[in-house]
Amino acid sequence: MAHKLKVIAEPGKQEIIMSRTFDAPRDLVFKATSDPNLIPKWWGPRYLTTTVAEMDVKAGGRWRFVQRDDKGNEFAFNGVYHEIAAPERVISTFEFENLPPEMGKGHVVLQKVTFEEVDGKTVYTEKSVYLSVEDRDGMIQSGMEGGATESMDRLEEVLATMK
Amino acid sequence: MAHKLKVIAEPGKQEIIMSRTFDAPRDLVFKATSDPNLIPKWWGPRYLTTTVAEMDVKAGGRWRFVQRDDKGNEFAFNGVYHEIAAPERVISTFEFENLPPEMGKGHVVLQKVTFEEVDGKTVYTEKSVYLSVEDRDGMIQSGMEGGATESMDRLEEVLATMK
Repeated sequence: MAHKLKVIAEPGKQEIIMSRTFDAPRDLVFKATSDPNLIPKWWGPRYLTTTVAEMDVKAGGRWRFVQRDDKGNEFAFNGVYHEIAAPERVISTFEFENLPPEMGKGHVVLQKVTFEEVDGKTVYTEKSVYLSVEDRDGMIQSGMEGGATESMDRLEEVLATMK
Repeated sequence: MAHKLKVIAEPGKQEIIMSRTFDAPRDLVFKATSDPNLIPKWWGPRYLTTTVAEMDVKAGGRWRFVQRDDKGNEFAFNGVYHEIAAPERVISTFEFENLPPEMGKGHVVLQKVTFEEVDGKTVYTEKSVYLSVEDRDGMIQSGMEGGATESMDRLEEVLATMK
């Protein structure tokens, strides 16, 4: 039975909580999300090729992922790891480098990912906290949920090959 | 006329907005808050001695301030700068290293400071976004407002010497 992505975004709040259960032990889910060699296999939608430009998984370390489509367009994301509590929790920041100019700069997101093992399965929960409700609502309107669903489906496929 | 600190913390939200007007041009307020030599003169309450251990004011740069009292107790804070848009805006993270153990780890705060010049005065606004409403409420209960009021009063004194 395939698990589904749950997305909670309460009106007026500045956070989005996404949660997904995987049929895999916690150590494996943690590894799949923190190994630079595995990120390109699941991070982002299938029609984009994701490259890890930088991924220093420790407190204070930076990460930067670049996505390319088949027309040569590039989209890049970066952030800093603030806490790596393997295999329970990762706190980091997230920035999209290619926001439309009219949005201005400074749209940093704070993210906390937790991994909970329940009956041999792992509940992956990602809380994203935005600088404002407007920033949060803009992310929802950008179609984030579809992209996240696809990433989580791909992560499940990667986990199946790791067992 | 002395300006006062305004603190807004709406119930159920996970942010605190603090705002204070200074009788000084924006460039000066920006400098006083981003110069490692000036931080010890105003950051924190007067009974503590603040030392800048690290302060690399650029995107991706780290900061760490250490406070000591006259009994030898130490309190340390650190974070990462995410955006330095001088003299308008600074986005960074903030962590207190000496939280009580029962609080656990992972209480990272995302901060956005904006500097607006209005009629030769500068409105300094600091928005702090917490990972949860509970984290935010805990910070308020810790007596943050008193400490912030004292820091802002001290910053005003530093600005008076810079004119």
